[in-house]
Amino acid sequence: MRRDAARSRLAALGFGDADAGVLADHFLDAERRGKRGHGLARIDWLETLPDLDPTARPVRTASSPGFDRWEGRGALGYLTLAAIADDLVRRPPQPAKVVVARDCVPTGALGYWVRRLADAGLVAVLTATSPARLPHPDGGPAVVGTNPLAIGVPADGGPVVADVSMGRATYGDVLAGVATPDELVPFGGEHAHKAFALALGLQLLVDSQVGDGHGAVLVALRDEFGPSGVRERLRGLRIPGDR
Amino acid sequence: MRRDAARSRLAALGFGDADAGVLADHFLDAERRGKRGHGLARIDWLETLPDLDPTARPVRTASSPGFDRWEGRGALGYLTLAAIADDLVRRPPQPAKVVVARDCVPTGALGYWVRRLADAGLVAVLTATSPARLPHPDGGPAVVGTNPLAIGVPADGGPVVADVSMGRATYGDVLAGVATPDELVPFGGEHAHKAFALALGLQLLVDSQVGDGHGAVLVALRDEFGPSGVRERLRGLRIPGDR
Repeated sequence: MRRDAARSRLAALGFGDADAGVLADHFLDAERRGKRGHGLARIDWLETLPDLDPTARPVRTASSPGFDRWEGRGALGYLTLAAIADDLVRRPPQPAKVVVARDCVPTGALGYWVRRLADAGLVAVLTATSPARLPHPDGGPAVVGTNPLAIGVPADGGPVVADVSMGRATYGDVLAGVATPDELVPFGGEHAHKAFALALGLQLLVDSQVGDGHGAVLVALRDEFGPSGVRERLRGLRIPGDR
Repeated sequence: MRRDAARSRLAALGFGDADAGVLADHFLDAERRGKRGHGLARIDWLETLPDLDPTARPVRTASSPGFDRWEGRGALGYLTLAAIADDLVRRPPQPAKVVVARDCVPTGALGYWVRRLADAGLVAVLTATSPARLPHPDGGPAVVGTNPLAIGVPADGGPVVADVSMGRATYGDVLAGVATPDELVPFGGEHAHKAFALALGLQLLVDSQVGDGHGAVLVALRDEFGPSGVRERLRGLRIPGDR
């Protein structure tokens, strides 16, 4: 029901059936996981974008055994990551592949995409840049994005998915009204220099591959040793990414 | 002078000239950067190891355009990472390579190895597992290593190197007497679940590639867009990895 309503609103923006389904599924999964900043509020936000091109399609511009390069070509980052995930599931890495995506924004909840790959048996690590929102812990203007790092690994009972933004809050949380702008600082309190270092390192990593603009870097690997017994070892404790 | 003394002690343990030089340079760099847990105290520690094999040599057991696999074969992890870095500098990734190392422990200050690659013009991301020392933020026994993540990127004025352990303290800091064992918890205070999620994700990532024992996963990429002006943007603020 909610899915139909979400798809209708996306269709009204001009998205085709398949793309509207990809977007609705991502937003609804974010809602179910309590990541409201990546949820249905994003449809409101899409409705405000003056230059949204719902017909734009990402393109794989280079491919070699261990490396693929993609360009969003004006498509939403969600759709670029969905196309990359589809491609990796269809042509699994033998045994590993680095994927770089230029013009890839917004990327949504990165955990969603690595979970999809882990559901297909792949190990995946994904980061993406976003507009500068975090300042250095010692002050000054915002210099790096919240630049999340997501890691998905197949495991007994379903993938384990770590998905960590380097901010105390995400910009999506601010958009959704569940965090205030002053929470857009590196997380960690007295150890905020650690989260800042990760945010800056990930920023420069992605920048080194995509130049100007926002992008994503993904590493996908074959799972060589099968499901780990991590849920057994952590019995009774909350596993990252579990609802 | 200190280097000669360090090399002598390493030679007395049976290490050849080249390996003693690699180890001494790593330990002395850690001392200079205030990472005493990865510094000369490690020579004391090596002197206590009953089954140290100073003649063991790491071996590259598989290689394809985007992927290499290495095994430590009983060599210290430092020497395995040094061999991998040498190999990547000699045969740079075209344009990216994932490297997995089994039986690769201890790995020292990961920032040292990615800096070496960044000095040679490569972008590098490196993680490695270590014995379980961090508990879940909600309690229980230690379940994951401090599993650092290091990112090195060429930049004007020298590489930017983020090197972040997921613990409030590293085990090396405890060994060196600059931290207490109760600091072996995920960093971040009220956001410690984020550091724990990263430590667990990195643990499962490496485990998926090396199975039992400790290992490392490295991604090296060509720097496609040249030095960033990050030092300009962060003028007056401390850059991660700078002394």
